[in-house]
This record gives sequence, C-alpha cells and structure tokens, in this order.
Amino acid sequence: MTSTALQSPPTTPRILSRCRALVAPALAEAIGGLHPWVAEMAGYALGLCEVGGAPAIRSQGKGVRQALAVLGAEAAGGPAGAGVPGAVAVELVHTFSLLHDDIMDGDALRRGRPAVWKAYGTGPAVLAGDALFALAVETLGATPHAAAAVRQLTTALSDLVRGQADDLLFAERPWTGPEAVGVGEYEVMAERKTGALLGCAPALGAQLAGAPRETATALDRAGRHLGVAFQIADDLLGMWGDPLVMGKPVHSDLRQGKKTLPVLIALNAPGSSALAELLTSPTALDDRGLCHAAALVERAGGRTAALREARRHLGSAHALLASVSLAPGPAAELRTLLSSLARRAI
Amino acid sequence: MTSTALQSPPTTPRILSRCRALVAPALAEAIGGLHPWVAEMAGYALGLCEVGGAPAIRSQGKGVRQALAVLGAEAAGGPAGAGVPGAVAVELVHTFSLLHDDIMDGDALRRGRPAVWKAYGTGPAVLAGDALFALAVETLGATPHAAAAVRQLTTALSDLVRGQADDLLFAERPWTGPEAVGVGEYEVMAERKTGALLGCAPALGAQLAGAPRETATALDRAGRHLGVAFQIADDLLGMWGDPLVMGKPVHSDLRQGKKTLPVLIALNAPGSSALAELLTSPTALDDRGLCHAAALVERAGGRTAALREARRHLGSAHALLASVSLAPGPAAELRTLLSSLARRAI
Repeated sequence: MTSTALQSPPTTPRILSRCRALVAPALAEAIGGLHPWVAEMAGYALGLCEVGGAPAIRSQGKGVRQALAVLGAEAAGGPAGAGVPGAVAVELVHTFSLLHDDIMDGDALRRGRPAVWKAYGTGPAVLAGDALFALAVETLGATPHAAAAVRQLTTALSDLVRGQADDLLFAERPWTGPEAVGVGEYEVMAERKTGALLGCAPALGAQLAGAPRETATALDRAGRHLGVAFQIADDLLGMWGDPLVMGKPVHSDLRQGKKTLPVLIALNAPGSSALAELLTSPTALDDRGLCHAAALVERAGGRTAALREARRHLGSAHALLASVSLAPGPAAELRTLLSSLARRAI
Repeated sequence: MTSTALQSPPTTPRILSRCRALVAPALAEAIGGLHPWVAEMAGYALGLCEVGGAPAIRSQGKGVRQALAVLGAEAAGGPAGAGVPGAVAVELVHTFSLLHDDIMDGDALRRGRPAVWKAYGTGPAVLAGDALFALAVETLGATPHAAAAVRQLTTALSDLVRGQADDLLFAERPWTGPEAVGVGEYEVMAERKTGALLGCAPALGAQLAGAPRETATALDRAGRHLGVAFQIADDLLGMWGDPLVMGKPVHSDLRQGKKTLPVLIALNAPGSSALAELLTSPTALDDRGLCHAAALVERAGGRTAALREARRHLGSAHALLASVSLAPGPAAELRTLLSSLARRAI
C-alpha cells in the first residue's frame, strides 16, 4: 500500500476545481465555435463573461455536473479525459435548461446577476438556449461512442422536459382535494427535473470510458436519487434555511405557492386542517402568516419526514454506487461529492 | 420499357400527400410519447389538433421537408420507410424552429391560427419547442445509422441557429453605409436559416437508406441552394406578390425594415440615392411611400436581379441532383418538388 492510498480522499472544493480545470478548455473551445453573438450569451450564461464579452467578475457555477461526468469516466477505470466531452455536454444542457427555465418561471436573477432573458431579451435568450442544446448533442456526436452517448443524453433531456412540464402544472394545482399534488408525483417530478441530468452526467462519463452497461445504469440511477435528495434539501432550506446560503428569502417558495415536499407531507398528516385553511385562504399570506404556516408544517412532522426522505434517497444513491465495481479513488470522490451535494453544503 | 415508365412523374400535391401518408403514423407515435400537455402543444404546432386537443379544423402544413427526406431515401435506392425516421426528425425540428422563431420575432399568427406562444403562453411554448427538438434527436438516435444521422441533423441545427442569429441582427443594421447588410451576407443567412434544413432532409433520407457519402452531400448542397431560392422567392412575393397567396400584406417586410434581397440589390445599383433617402427617412413610410419604394426598387433592377439570383440557385440545385447517381423515378419527383417549391407554387 502506497502512502497515497493512506491519504483521505480530496475535499469537495478540490474535486470540483480539479474537474473544472480539466473541462474548461474543451468548454471554451465548444462555445468559441458558436455565432459570436450567441457565443457571448452562452459565455454570460456559463458565468465566463459579462454582458459585452469582458471576463466575468463573479465566479462561475460550481460545475457539479461536469465533475460527475469526469468522475464517472475515472470510476469506470478510464482516463479523466474520456469523460470530458460528456462533461461539456451536460454542462451545456444544464446551462440551456437554466436559461429556458428562467424564461418560463419569469426569474429575473440567476447567480446574483440578471438572467440571460433580462440581460439580452427573451427572443435572443430562447435562441442562445437552443444553440447550447444543439452544441451539447453535437459534442457527443463527435465522440467514439456517439450513438449510445446521444441516447443517454436524449433520455435525460426528455425527462428534463417532462419534469419541467409537471413543475409548471403543479403550480396551478390546489393544495387540497382530489386535484392536489401527491407526494409520489412530487418525487417523480424531482427525479426528472433535477435527477435526470445528475444521473446522466456520471453515466455518460462511464459510457465514454467504455464501461459495461450495468455500471452506467447504476451511476444513472444513483444520480437520479441524488437529484431527489438535492431537491428536498432545497425545499427544506427554502423554508428553514439561511437566506444568505440560499440566495433567496426564506418562505419564498411558500409565498409563490410552490408545491414543496415538507408542505405536501404535512398536508397529508392527521390534524393538518389549520395548515390547509391557511394555505387555501383567498388573501395572500404576509410574513407572519408565512412563519405560522412554516411552524404548522413543522408541527405536522413535514420537516422531519422530508429530511428522512432526503436521507433515504441519498442512501439509495450510495447503495447503487456500492453495487458495481468502480475504481476506489474516483469512487471515494464520487461519494464525497454526492454527500456534500445532498447536504447543499456546496 | 413498361407503361409506367412512360407516364409523366406525379404532380407536387400527389408527391406531398403520398409522403405525408407514409410519415403521419410515425410522427403521431413520436408525439404520443411526450408529456400529455406538451404533446397537445406539439400537436397544435404541427397542425394536428386545436387548443384543447380536438382534431384540427384547418389543414396542417404541406410537409415539404418530410417529403424531401422520404424522396432522399428512395432516390438513394432504399425503401421509402428507411427515410421515415429522418422525415419525422426534420418535421419536428422545422416545427420547433417555427415555434421558437415566432417567439423571437413576436409573430402572433402562424398558418392563420394563433402562434403557440399566443395560444399557450411564452414559457410553455419555449418548453414545447425544447421537447420537439429533443424528440427529433431521440428519433434519429434509435436508427441503425444513429451517429451519422445525428451529426447530419446537428450540423443543420447549428446553421439554423446561426442563420436566425444573423436574421435578428440584420433587422437592427442600417440600410446604407459601412454597417449595411451585403448581398453576400444575405445569401449566407438565407442558406443557413432556410437552406440548412431543406438540405438536411434529403441528405438524412439518403443516409438512412445507406447511400454513399457523396450522394448525401450532393443532396444536402442541393437543398441549401433550394433554400436560398425559396427565401428570395419569399422576398419577391412579399413585395410584388398576391397577398392572398402569401397570407401577409404586400410590403410588410419593407414596413418592418426587413433586409430583403431585391432592396439590398437595388441599394447597391447606381442611382439608388432616392431609394436610400426614402428608406432612411426618420418617419415611418405610409402605404403610398411603401408603393413608391417598391417602384424604386424595381426601377433600380432589384426585382429582375433577385429573380435571376433565385433561378441561379435553383439551377445549382438541379445540377447537384444531376451530379450523382439516383433512382430515376424518385429523382424526377425530387426535381418536381424542387421547382415548385422555388416558385412558391405550393
């Protein structure tokens, strides 16, 4: 056993920064081939530049998905470089989906800056998203395992669209009654909207490194469970978390009528009539009303049960990683990344 | 020689309706796999249903691109069915691009009905477009020649985005001076925006039927020339055509400041100062002013030269078809389709 093997695995920030450094040149090259105007919007959306093309002042995204793709390739016994086209593709698709989702949700801010549609206009933002989408598919089309890689990505894309469609429709559905959103429906939506790409990333990396089918499938399923855990953690932070950590005010989900898991669980618990009455009241809740609603959700066990559910999904993700043969070092890094991601600690 | 060989080739309406009948079940099956809400928007965009899902009252599109894909397969010596996944993919991409272009251009009407973004909202329309795009790639990913087919489609998509970006930027550029749009720039834009998919369609069909690379390339290039001819014909009809045929009022392009070829040519001709002055006048032109501008364009030779340019591109398309070995019957149908499409007679 070498001394290296005795060292503890790298921390999440180190893992992310190593992978970002590996992927950055390929990502920049891909973007550089776009129409110059579209390339600027893409660079802005990726946090690489400001409006006008000057280098970005604020830091870019963490690059979780690109890291998962690189680690997927390494965990499958391949070189990190094998996963890079997959990393580029998932990062482009993630950016495309944020860009179009911000239009759909009317969100004016993204990572503390104006969203692309606010900075460049809705039409150009639609076009920039389309360009990123096409570029992602093009990137995979140029790899040696193109057909399988494209299939892996389009499955994720198709789920992404389904998840986003359900999320948009959930917002219009009532809190109570036969039309209310069920806990099961929520989890399916979260798996698609958030999990599909988190699963696709390591699966794509593994696939590009020539991994057997069952390895890619296990990594895909692990990422999907991670996505549900991640979404639930987001819900919990949105109700009880630190607004500085989240970048959005506590209770904003509740204010917007977003169907989050703690509330859905609480509404299904015995004695939830006061909560139901509060949420379905015709007048919008003020800050006091929102605090009261959050307290009722907690009292009904919504917070604890949602946390338990997030832990269960994280456990399933880890169990899936353990179910296939992976290179020990990268597998340890994957586990580190999964756990800190599910805790929303990064 | 059999009696069939002595018959004249079928007319364009017959060609289109035969191909539509072949492709319709596969197209319906593909759409049917989407999220139900997204499937309804997709069906509406394709002209298959009305808002709410009831069968369409008005007829759907002509299906030029799907016919080109089917004929491409047959011209390459394959069965029509080999081209069907390509036909489905190009029809989905065409619908996706119209859907997103209508958002970008703010066009409220499409084929005499409210555009998808008007009927369902901008956000849902963005999502429906994304879903059609993903479905197109997914459809090709399931074919035996998946990797090459996906590459063919993404090349067209990438050009489509570049063409649309240029078209959006051209609208903001002046009529005269060093920043004015050149005739060469116009043709590159038209080839990308209109030609890329018209070229991709028969090339994809041929490729899926196992045609040699040079056949697919010739068909792709032929379709791109056709696209430029088609776009010029559109410009000509928009200035001097029958508004009943076009579905939009004569001079509407001129009113919107759209950079059409007859005007660009006229502005480059000697003695165009009166036209330049009229177009750059700070007050918007009224109907009389628009008629006067159109007359000046014609007097400067813009109409004749643009028509000559359209014929030249149509000639190049026919020459490319003649440059490769194709099955005679389908090749004749391709020629019929090309000529009537360039005349905007369908």
